[in-house]
Amino acid sequence: MSSNEIDINVVDFVPGRWGDPADPMHLSDSVTGALSMLGITEQAPAPVALALPSPRLDSNALTAFSATGASVTTDDEVRAARLRGFSTPDLLKFRAGDGSDAPDAVVTPSTADQVAAVLAVCDEQGIGLSPFAGGTTVTGGLVPDRSRPVISLDLRDLTGLLHLDETSQIATFASGTRLPDAERLLGEHGFELGHFPQSYEGATIGGCAVTRSAGQSSVGYGRFDDMVVGLTIATPRGVAEIGTAPKSAAGPDLRQLFLGSEGAFGVVTRVRVRVHPTPSVRRFYGWHFPDFAAGTTAMRALAQSNIKPTVLRLSDEAETGLNLANPSAAGSANGPVGGCLMIVGFEGDAADVDCRDAYISARLNELGGAALGTEPGEHWREGRFRGPYLRDPLLDAGALVETLETVTFWSNLDRLKADVTAAVTGALGDQGTPAVVMCHISHVYPTGASLYFTVIAKSLTDPVAQWAEAKSAANAAIRAAGASITHHHAVGTDHQAAYLEEIGDVQQTALRAVKSALDPNGVLNPGILLP
Amino acid sequence: MSSNEIDINVVDFVPGRWGDPADPMHLSDSVTGALSMLGITEQAPAPVALALPSPRLDSNALTAFSATGASVTTDDEVRAARLRGFSTPDLLKFRAGDGSDAPDAVVTPSTADQVAAVLAVCDEQGIGLSPFAGGTTVTGGLVPDRSRPVISLDLRDLTGLLHLDETSQIATFASGTRLPDAERLLGEHGFELGHFPQSYEGATIGGCAVTRSAGQSSVGYGRFDDMVVGLTIATPRGVAEIGTAPKSAAGPDLRQLFLGSEGAFGVVTRVRVRVHPTPSVRRFYGWHFPDFAAGTTAMRALAQSNIKPTVLRLSDEAETGLNLANPSAAGSANGPVGGCLMIVGFEGDAADVDCRDAYISARLNELGGAALGTEPGEHWREGRFRGPYLRDPLLDAGALVETLETVTFWSNLDRLKADVTAAVTGALGDQGTPAVVMCHISHVYPTGASLYFTVIAKSLTDPVAQWAEAKSAANAAIRAAGASITHHHAVGTDHQAAYLEEIGDVQQTALRAVKSALDPNGVLNPGILLP
Repeated sequence: MSSNEIDINVVDFVPGRWGDPADPMHLSDSVTGALSMLGITEQAPAPVALALPSPRLDSNALTAFSATGASVTTDDEVRAARLRGFSTPDLLKFRAGDGSDAPDAVVTPSTADQVAAVLAVCDEQGIGLSPFAGGTTVTGGLVPDRSRPVISLDLRDLTGLLHLDETSQIATFASGTRLPDAERLLGEHGFELGHFPQSYEGATIGGCAVTRSAGQSSVGYGRFDDMVVGLTIATPRGVAEIGTAPKSAAGPDLRQLFLGSEGAFGVVTRVRVRVHPTPSVRRFYGWHFPDFAAGTTAMRALAQSNIKPTVLRLSDEAETGLNLANPSAAGSANGPVGGCLMIVGFEGDAADVDCRDAYISARLNELGGAALGTEPGEHWREGRFRGPYLRDPLLDAGALVETLETVTFWSNLDRLKADVTAAVTGALGDQGTPAVVMCHISHVYPTGASLYFTVIAKSLTDPVAQWAEAKSAANAAIRAAGASITHHHAVGTDHQAAYLEEIGDVQQTALRAVKSALDPNGVLNPGILLP
Repeated sequence: MSSNEIDINVVDFVPGRWGDPADPMHLSDSVTGALSMLGITEQAPAPVALALPSPRLDSNALTAFSATGASVTTDDEVRAARLRGFSTPDLLKFRAGDGSDAPDAVVTPSTADQVAAVLAVCDEQGIGLSPFAGGTTVTGGLVPDRSRPVISLDLRDLTGLLHLDETSQIATFASGTRLPDAERLLGEHGFELGHFPQSYEGATIGGCAVTRSAGQSSVGYGRFDDMVVGLTIATPRGVAEIGTAPKSAAGPDLRQLFLGSEGAFGVVTRVRVRVHPTPSVRRFYGWHFPDFAAGTTAMRALAQSNIKPTVLRLSDEAETGLNLANPSAAGSANGPVGGCLMIVGFEGDAADVDCRDAYISARLNELGGAALGTEPGEHWREGRFRGPYLRDPLLDAGALVETLETVTFWSNLDRLKADVTAAVTGALGDQGTPAVVMCHISHVYPTGASLYFTVIAKSLTDPVAQWAEAKSAANAAIRAAGASITHHHAVGTDHQAAYLEEIGDVQQTALRAVKSALDPNGVLNPGILLP
């Protein structure tokens, strides 16, 4: 692949394993060796057959859904393919044969009008509705309350580039469009979205909107919630077109009320997003810093500068040591020994990239960085969606592996990293399973940054319960440090308790009022975001 | 003044005339000459004495307010000083002696706890409350519904820099802090806010938050709603602390629900905002473009670039011809004849400014610009808060002069400019008062830009009714073009009808739900934002 192309690989994620089933990853000898140091020597038990609950919808409801023109099925295989998401507990439950969260039916509309019609049926009959698009949630966003029947509203037939305004650099997509499809369609016109979350191969435009996704080029192109110019949302109270202008003083910015609403306020059917011309130059470097503190200081200096790169990422000593920034070579030590690896990427035309590169390289030198050239940067770029592929072979090998993330202001970052690391290692160590906790910064702002943790320990016989202890300790540490419970993984069900505590009573009152007003019968993603 | 200092001039705006009463502007002979071409030869009648309605609060209410510790008065002079804002109709009503919108009392708390206590009294007794800070609204934001008694809650004693996090570059201000005071306080620590709306001399931190203000350096430092990291808001349901992190995926971004809420959802008492080190270099240039189309294309190219200046502004041919970018020399033609003037400003340290300046100057040359050097840029910078000072002498001279603004996407900008210009000239021409309509772009985004219009015509005997026709026609043109009714002047009462149409039923339902939940007795700024 030449250096100015984007990876375009649409993957049909299916429950049970992350990513492309045709292209799994295998553990290197060095990773296997590292696992044995954590006492991980026994393979996990083989997955057992999935047991699904019987569908609970009567023929009246199924007929009403069919009458909308959407396709409707209660087939077990289809329901299983809409079961939960891709957190480690989700994968573990799947392996254990637990299909208890499956929807009662899968309804697949092919137009926005059909979405509205399906929503009307749900509203009339009091049937819960869980929007499904990429299915890549890692926070329980696809586990709606099943106290009444619930359908999976599969949005993946709502796909395509509906409009491109080349002058304003705005593309309108159907919400179920997968990110690689979006890039392919824009590429035909010389444009690019540039939104690359690690779930890129499976995630959709609508899913990124309702979960406030952040991509690896967030420094250059912004988070997804920055990129969204407008939304079309179907609600039980009618369809809303939100977003009149780039920015406005016409009251609250209600785009930001629906972005992050995780389907609780309506179903997004169309998204207008900012795009940019396909960069003619993409240049990615590695930089070495003696330790995380020096690297963090440099990250902050760049984040607070007027001139920024497109991609900026810093691995801590543990992550650098395990070479996780280059998943294909994970565990091998082929970089500088010790210290921290920073990835600095530029995309644009030649004059723009040359200008920013010269300025930023000079600053990084001043800040104590040592240039490693483009090889580590290009390795990172090539492997950047592969990291999560390592999880399945690690689980197979008897490891418990999971990630979590948070965000805070710069002055609080050291404390947050130390506290979360201590909480997770403490909670796992207390169970007799010492953990390796690695961390990176991959999204920066003038006022702060995110922290992304990867945790590996030996799996116990009930790894779901084992991880729940660690996650609970991490959430408590995040709350105690005053940080946000999630930077880009969203609330779902897993973060709900911490989220409600984070926003407090007045904000909860405001959100519940919106929910009650737009969804009086509570059919939209019941139990997600708000209890 | 040296080129790296900021103007710091706190002005106690008082109703009736804009800005610093000690430093009024006078019309040059060339302006007077231009007015005569519009048939403006007769002076406006002298202002008449202001007639205020009697205060309607009983001693029970006044005693309850006093018991909070806030100072309370029903004095006519104080009430008159909290009367309306600074739109041209506001000034004209003042001149005509119309004090009918005056509050029944002025209550001035000096702590956030007193704000909450005053709010509780209002909630219990059903008394309306109109927060007052800088008082510089130009859209009727200080004309609450008077169908029941209403107090002006004067926030100007809530002032000061409460906290500065130099690492995270975040300052916490009491909401009544005036912008020049904020800059002075930050300057003592080597920091700057960099928010320069034209109302800078009188506006407050809290006012900028609730109206989504945009400053002249918005390209470099963002709009005020971009700069706000957190808010403390007193509501009848309790106090909310909003904003945990720079950005988060923890549900909707509720900062953006309260920013722009114009006091309808609560009273902002503290604001945490992003700041930056005081720039060591400030460099402002003039550039000449042959026409507005060429200048707009260049503005768009810079707005869509990865490397941006700090200030960017383009006057159309009419505004360039009248030299409005240099108010002290308005009407004199000392620039290039014809074409359009662009102001391009850079602020930062020397390496940063040199880097951006070189890149952007090269681009502007490629885009057909002709460099005019720093003189026009420095003239603009020195006079940048003086433009509105011209309005009072123009009104005195018998002119009707007012501004309005809007925002849309780039592909719609030409149509919007043409349609608004035609609507305003048509509505005034139909009344026998041909108008000069000038325009500039002063806020740009990758996807679009604002348009700011200045209108001058001969005043009729009822100039309020005369302007109402023009404003109504402009609003209709803005709505028909699909643009937003306001880019940075907010909704107030003047834009309410167009605003409600702009957001539509579903969004209105959501906002009304929030209003009812947080302010069940409807005491917060009754009639503002929502009817």
